[in-house]
Amino acid sequence: MAKKKPLILVSNDDGITSRGIKTLVEVMCELGDVIVVAPDSPQSGMGHAITVGNTLRLDRSTIFEGLDAYECSGTPADCVKLAKHYVLKDNSPDLVVSGINHGSNSSISVLYSGTMSAAIEGAIEGFPAIGFSLCDYSLQADFSHTKEYVKKITQQVLEFGLPKDIALNVNIPAKSSEKIKGIKICRQAHAKWQEVFDQRKDPNGRRYFWMAGNFVNHDKGEDTDEWALANNYVSIVPCMYDLTAHHALSTLNQWNI
Amino acid sequence: MAKKKPLILVSNDDGITSRGIKTLVEVMCELGDVIVVAPDSPQSGMGHAITVGNTLRLDRSTIFEGLDAYECSGTPADCVKLAKHYVLKDNSPDLVVSGINHGSNSSISVLYSGTMSAAIEGAIEGFPAIGFSLCDYSLQADFSHTKEYVKKITQQVLEFGLPKDIALNVNIPAKSSEKIKGIKICRQAHAKWQEVFDQRKDPNGRRYFWMAGNFVNHDKGEDTDEWALANNYVSIVPCMYDLTAHHALSTLNQWNI
Repeated sequence: MAKKKPLILVSNDDGITSRGIKTLVEVMCELGDVIVVAPDSPQSGMGHAITVGNTLRLDRSTIFEGLDAYECSGTPADCVKLAKHYVLKDNSPDLVVSGINHGSNSSISVLYSGTMSAAIEGAIEGFPAIGFSLCDYSLQADFSHTKEYVKKITQQVLEFGLPKDIALNVNIPAKSSEKIKGIKICRQAHAKWQEVFDQRKDPNGRRYFWMAGNFVNHDKGEDTDEWALANNYVSIVPCMYDLTAHHALSTLNQWNI
Repeated sequence: MAKKKPLILVSNDDGITSRGIKTLVEVMCELGDVIVVAPDSPQSGMGHAITVGNTLRLDRSTIFEGLDAYECSGTPADCVKLAKHYVLKDNSPDLVVSGINHGSNSSISVLYSGTMSAAIEGAIEGFPAIGFSLCDYSLQADFSHTKEYVKKITQQVLEFGLPKDIALNVNIPAKSSEKIKGIKICRQAHAKWQEVFDQRKDPNGRRYFWMAGNFVNHDKGEDTDEWALANNYVSIVPCMYDLTAHHALSTLNQWNI
């Protein structure tokens, strides 16, 4: 008797028409039955936002021929919530995948990432979950070399599962002439964005700003995602949604309040 | 010689006109020099969203008489970034506070919280940071009883600082006839929202949804924020922005990929 194919929920933050989700759907269709619920427009930088105090749209999409696909007006986290509670109902997915993001979500960017919020929402719901990102922000980025790694990591998770309550943050180096050296399990580098605000005047003379920034990494550890990517490895960071700084509890418990 | 007063940056997610930030500003003015940079409209549920691919407005506000205050079109995280890099420039705040939120941000809600994203952004920038929330969602919530706790916790942090790289998530029970019993240092309860999607038709017959939900807590630990709040204590959870599940690294390192 044939083994039942795994049910895989696919989402992203660049929107359902992006090249990244197309690549991800292609790989997932080789591995299981696929359902897509993804934003109808780009949601980059949305972090773990959800739609509060406003309505949500969810409509069938014909963008992926032969697949059950939906576009949603909300955030990536909204998409996973709607998928679980409305689209899939009691039919739990075996895996939630998100991406492939156009641009890195390594280090501190995991916090701002809509891609990772969809994966983390999957983990909160109790499903194995992976967010995939390519270190190339271009809308026309070449994803061809990512397929091998996306497939390998997904197969591993489908076969062996994940530790409880975590989602994987997978970043893949951009295409280059040098071959990727392999896959590294990493910790999140202790780095941050140094913002620059470009001040301009609109046609009515009123001030506005563009936020730009430079990524600053003082963390020289060779066990970080930044080190792995800089050295042409695919990085995998297991991420959790319990933000408690357990190591700080004893210090705070000495407070006399 | 008089000791220099601490410089305190105040933000929130309910918007600069909310009752909660008014209360927070009142308490902070007793403790230091205050600068306010807060959203010009409600940003609840924005998680750690930032404004990418769009412009930002930042205008002076006269809402707090005699104070340096600005309203911003962006998210709470945007507000802290603009405050640091544009408003304050090289004048680092001694403390970043956010709130007081209208509604609880305990347990998993910390991830969706705009209030906490402002505080966590402060921690990323290297400042001691605290997010305050009142367990009452009403716009007309009574904040009078919160002042004593907000002041006590803030004084403690101003005097003794915080462990590196963490922000405090402080939740205060709603006003009731019963007196609050005290303050507890806690871990984030392992609980989640169980969403319900209310499906309706718009006047054109097209489907839309309202997301609603029930909070479900199966974590019976007496060291959690949920336990503290249910037993009429103020809860404090130290939160970190390194999401790495360090305990999972060894398991993943056994993978053969």
